[in-house]
Parts: sequence; C-alpha cells; structure tokens
Amino acid sequence: MIQDIDKELSMSKIDALIATGDSTFGNPSLAYVVGASVTRGGIYIKHVGSKPVLLVSEIDVGSAKKGIVQEIRSYSEFGYLELSKKLGDRRAKIEICARALKELGVKGNVCLAGRVEAGNALNWAKGLKEKGFKISVDEDLVDRVRMTKDNNEIDKIRNVGRKTEKVMEAIKRMLSECYVGKDGKLRAEGGEPLTVGDVKAFIRIRLAEENLIASEDTIFAVGAEAADPHNGGAEKTIIPTNTPIVFDIFPQEVGGYCFDTTRTFVVGKASQEVKKAYTDVLESQLLAIDSIRESVPAKEVMRKVCEFLRGRGHKTPIYYTEKNIPMTDGFIHGLGHGVGLTIGEPPFLRLISDEILTEGAVTTVEPGVYYPDKFGVRVEDMVVVRKNKAENLSTFPKEPEIS
Amino acid sequence: MIQDIDKELSMSKIDALIATGDSTFGNPSLAYVVGASVTRGGIYIKHVGSKPVLLVSEIDVGSAKKGIVQEIRSYSEFGYLELSKKLGDRRAKIEICARALKELGVKGNVCLAGRVEAGNALNWAKGLKEKGFKISVDEDLVDRVRMTKDNNEIDKIRNVGRKTEKVMEAIKRMLSECYVGKDGKLRAEGGEPLTVGDVKAFIRIRLAEENLIASEDTIFAVGAEAADPHNGGAEKTIIPTNTPIVFDIFPQEVGGYCFDTTRTFVVGKASQEVKKAYTDVLESQLLAIDSIRESVPAKEVMRKVCEFLRGRGHKTPIYYTEKNIPMTDGFIHGLGHGVGLTIGEPPFLRLISDEILTEGAVTTVEPGVYYPDKFGVRVEDMVVVRKNKAENLSTFPKEPEIS
Repeated sequence: MIQDIDKELSMSKIDALIATGDSTFGNPSLAYVVGASVTRGGIYIKHVGSKPVLLVSEIDVGSAKKGIVQEIRSYSEFGYLELSKKLGDRRAKIEICARALKELGVKGNVCLAGRVEAGNALNWAKGLKEKGFKISVDEDLVDRVRMTKDNNEIDKIRNVGRKTEKVMEAIKRMLSECYVGKDGKLRAEGGEPLTVGDVKAFIRIRLAEENLIASEDTIFAVGAEAADPHNGGAEKTIIPTNTPIVFDIFPQEVGGYCFDTTRTFVVGKASQEVKKAYTDVLESQLLAIDSIRESVPAKEVMRKVCEFLRGRGHKTPIYYTEKNIPMTDGFIHGLGHGVGLTIGEPPFLRLISDEILTEGAVTTVEPGVYYPDKFGVRVEDMVVVRKNKAENLSTFPKEPEIS
Repeated sequence: MIQDIDKELSMSKIDALIATGDSTFGNPSLAYVVGASVTRGGIYIKHVGSKPVLLVSEIDVGSAKKGIVQEIRSYSEFGYLELSKKLGDRRAKIEICARALKELGVKGNVCLAGRVEAGNALNWAKGLKEKGFKISVDEDLVDRVRMTKDNNEIDKIRNVGRKTEKVMEAIKRMLSECYVGKDGKLRAEGGEPLTVGDVKAFIRIRLAEENLIASEDTIFAVGAEAADPHNGGAEKTIIPTNTPIVFDIFPQEVGGYCFDTTRTFVVGKASQEVKKAYTDVLESQLLAIDSIRESVPAKEVMRKVCEFLRGRGHKTPIYYTEKNIPMTDGFIHGLGHGVGLTIGEPPFLRLISDEILTEGAVTTVEPGVYYPDKFGVRVEDMVVVRKNKAENLSTFPKEPEIS
C-alpha cells in the first residue's frame, strides 16, 4: 500500500524515491504514486518521512491535483522555461529535479522509478550523480509497495471485474443464442459460420460500451489452438461445437486498474476426456483458493496445485528435470500473478517465487492443463488475500457447457 | 528507417544496440526493432554490421517470427531455465544477454534501449559492466532511427488514418442528425440533451468497431473548455449549438501505429469572432504544410506559423519573454510532433527544436488559438515529409459548421 512507502524506503536505506516518466499512461509505477492520469507525466519526489511532492507541467497541474499527492508544483517554479531553452527538455527536467531535491533537504541515497527508455534512466542517474546525489538501485521497491492493495484500490478492481463479467455474460449469451446449421456449424441468426474474429469483434464493442480497454488482444482459443496457453486464437477459425474454448479476458480502465479472468466454454457437450481434465483443473483451483491466506509463501500454493494435478495424472513442473526443453503438456505455466495497474505484477504464484502473501495482495488463480494437438482447459479467478482466507472477486459461473 | 540502424550505430561509435523489455506492448522502441507483438518481450541485439538477433521465451518464438528479425533464438538455448532458478528471472536475462553478446563477438560499447523500469535499466547497465562490456548512453538513438518511416510503415499509418476518419465521419453524421429541442438543446431523436459523455461513448464504440484503441481519452472539448488545449472535455457538459468544439482523436492499432487528427466543429453557425480565428488558424496550417519538405529545419515551420498568426493579431511564443509564466492565450503550444508507434516522437515542430526534416518523417501540423473563458480552435493534419513537398495523410473536410 502507498502508506508503506516510508517503511520500504527506510528498510532499503533510501532517502528519497524519484519516479518520473513522459506520461502516467503506460507507466504504472508513476501512475501509482501519483494516483491520477497526468498526460505529460511528472517528477514525483518522496523524501523519507515527509509528504511527497509532484512536479508537473503547468498545463497538467489540474489533472495532477486529482491524485493523491497534495503538494503539486509546476516545472516553471524551478526555472524550467529558461533551462529547457538552454539544455533541452530532458536535461532541464533532471536539473529542476536536483533543485527540488535540494530544496527538500534530500542528502542521502536516491532511488529512481518509473517506466522510461533505458537510456533516459541512465542519463537521470548520471545527471543526479553529477549534482552530488548517490543513486541506490532497487528496481522492485515500487512493486513491493504496490503488491498490497488498499480498500480503495480493491474497490476499483472489483468494479472493473463487475464490468468484465458483464462482457463475459454477453459473450456467453451470444454463443447460447447461436444455432447449429445443417452443416454442423455454429451461426448467429441468418449469418455465416461464426468465427473467432466475429466473437473478438463483439468482445471489443462490448468492452468499449463498458469503457474498458484491452491493450493486448483477448484470448479466445478453440480446440487444438488452446493447447498452447498463449495462443490468442486465430481470427478465421470457425467456432466448433462440443470443443473446449479458452476465453481469457484482461481489460483495463483507461489509465487505471485491470481485471483478469478465464473461463473454458464448450458450446454443446464436452467429451469425457475434456470433462475429466476440466474437473481436475477446477478442483485444483478450489484447493488453491482454499489455501491462500496471509503469511502463506506464494510457492506453496503452486506446489499444492502441482501435487494435486500430478495425482490426477497430469504432468506438472514439480518433478520436471529437463534443463533446456520447456514443458509442452500438462500444467505448464505458473498458477497466478498479481493484478493491479498491470496484468502481471507481484505476487507470482510460481515454484521459484520467494514472496510471502500479504493481506490485500490481489492475485489470479489460474490452473490449466494443455494437450498438444488436442485441447487446453483453464479456469481463472481473481482473489484478494485476507488474514484467514482468500476473498474471491470473480463471480462468473464455472459450468463450461453452453447449451 | 530500420535500415539506418547501422549508420546510426557507427556514427555514435556503438558496437551493439540492446533493446529489452517485458513486452512489446507499451514499449515502442522494442516493438519497432522487433516488428511484431511479442507478449513477454525479449532481448534484441544488433551488432553493428551484422543481422540482428532476438532472444525470446520459447512460447513467444512463433509470434517473434512474424516480425522483421530473421534470427530468433530462445532463452533456453542460452541456459535460461537453470540460470533463472539460481538468479531469478531478471538477473538470468542479463546473464544470457551477456552470453549472446560474447557469442556474437560484441566487444566495444553497447547501448541500451527499450522502455523499462528505471531501476531495471540501471541493473542492466551494472550487470553488463560486470561482464566486461562498456555502456554507451544514447537515449535518442532508436528515436532517430524511428523518425523516418519507410513505405511499409507509412501504409500502416495511412490505414489507421482511414479508419480514424471513418470514426470522425460517424461522429459528424451523428451530430448533424441531432435536432435542437424547444429548450435550445441538442438531442438525438427522442433522447435527453446530448452530453460530451454520450459522444465519447459513441466514439469508443465506433473505434472498437474499427479495432482501434484510444489508450488516452479522446479530446472533445466545447466552448470555454476548449480554451485549454489539454482539456479533454467534461463528461457531463451538454453540447451547445453555435459554439466551437475541438475534437482531437489519436487512436492506435493494437500494438501498432497511431494516427492523430483534430477538427473544430460548430453545430449550427459560428460567430464572426470564431470564424476569423478559425480562418487564421486554417490559413496558418496550409502555409505550414506548404513549407514542409526535406531538409527544412523543424523550427522554421513553427516560426512561419508564429509570424503569420502574429500578423493576424494572435499572441505567439515568438516574442514571448516571460520567464516563469507560461502563455495562456493565442497560439500557445508547439506546431506539431512526429507520430508512429507513439503519438509523440521526433520530429517536434517547436521553436527550440533542432531537428532537420527528413524524407519519410511523419508529423502532425496542428496550429490552434485559445482564448480563456471563451473558446479554442485547432485544426490538425498528419503529413509525410517528401523531397519537395509534404504529402497530406488527412483527407477529412475542414468546414467547421455542421448544419
């Protein structure tokens, strides 16, 4: 939580955190500490033990004030207009940051954050060093603060979840209203056979109606395509009946929070093989959710799911010993990842994870099994870690068959 | 153009360019050198004089092959699976990059690119230094290469432009089909008075139909709101008649190219004052476009527009002498900026710009004048710099009045 930032700075012996970037859009760590959308970004300075200060362009002062930083200063208060003529925009910003740091009494190590071009980060470090500051590198600091969400953030995530599930419901309804033509193919009334492209177009419009953005494409992968968990689904594929479809949707509010959820659908009847795989995956998911609570090591939850799925006859990473050949069948990916301003952040529910779950961490729980040339199934909920349990933010039904 | 990368590397005395990042999404320099959407990003290495190599996760090899790098290698070929268990994902990637650099015979200065967390960039520089490489900082290198677009890129931009203008046309038609109620307010048939929020919702849906994303909100600012060129327009504002509306739309294809265009609309009749301001702005724009060609300094185009608008009685930055108070009325922003994989990149048509226009550079030309508490007008096209002229990519009509 943002309230923990002083604690994290002290633990890392950092005197001040500086977060920068050309925009808060596409810059989750800057967006997080600023708590607002600021089109041209800014320079956020958190001196340990003091209130943060945010320097922005004059024209962004209004948007910056909508955020969580109380003290908003404009670049020109630090002489930006003159400096930029002399040094150019980028060097001028480093210079005014140094001026602000001095004004704030920052003397010790400073740590840089914010998503920027690599060369820009190196120039910032160099420029601040030349001004006498020491640079302390801690690339996970903001991530660690961000991992635990406060109630305000969880409400926002829940709200994106509600909208996401409305879209999923519309897709499910659309599929259920299709009919099977004489050629055995699924069609919307009077239409051509339904393709993945048709469904994705419908998803995009429904997302737009909810004011959500899918900055990467939604996964809608059918049959053998879904055997690769990262195959998004080919536009031209005709949606088959009686075949599992992996529908993984992870939209975001403009400049805001994300949701991430997956359901496996079968239009018609699932085969016994698919039913068994799906039941195994679903039971492993319920087991995982049941074992999530504060203080549990993230890797333990992954381990439990591996042991369970292994007992049901699926390969898992737990006894996989090949050094240079990645797995291709069974449970072949991590169990989950944090979600907040991004769709992939700590905690990571993986065997190699060293995170301990904290109250307020939000994570996906998404086991799946994959059988090359045949099918894949996956089910994904989003949960909040609570003291004695996981609170499930996903309410969408898990019955795969759509009749 | 990507073909110029060797020339840029030689000129900057750099032996190899390394571009990295967790994804090509939101990472324009990595997306550019890779030429494809790679969900988990990768490590791109361009050794001067040799063909580039791209290292990606096994599961991304397929998507990476859709790009412009011919040699795709997987992380595990360099021992990633073992290394990541020992060092964690991030340090393992630096280690395999060092291994790949050695295999490729890279010995001199290496330059880092890609949009990443600042701390991550610093760790990359540190890690590679420890492996014996020298780090050369050149934060604009990829930007300079990207500034000049090849025909393939221009076709992609033109295509986004065509779709963007379809959306604009739909908005214009929607406004023209509204009627003025007895209360003088604009309404769609049978509806409540039309708000900016209604129009923005309609824009989002039309963008989704064209498979375009507006990752930042579209500007649809009416009356006095538009006097601040960065005011996006308040959702609840009721669209007035006989009042200028600044409609600035800048969508992007998923993981791809952008378009950026602005029109000023007036539903009904424009006042004489608005007509004059609009005519001044439009004439200054035509003058600017007419003066754009290869080898012209970017700032010269800006200067011409300033002189012209000054002659028409508007304030401009050209003789503005206040040091710490930004301008608030007249022509108060830059004339244009490059557009490609981002909506703000070189060249910048500003007084402080030092760029010389090159054939194939794509830039907006967007003069505007702003009168606080009254109104703003702006008109924006996108042009390609050609040898002896500018080629206009925008075809949307410029008549502001919608009857």
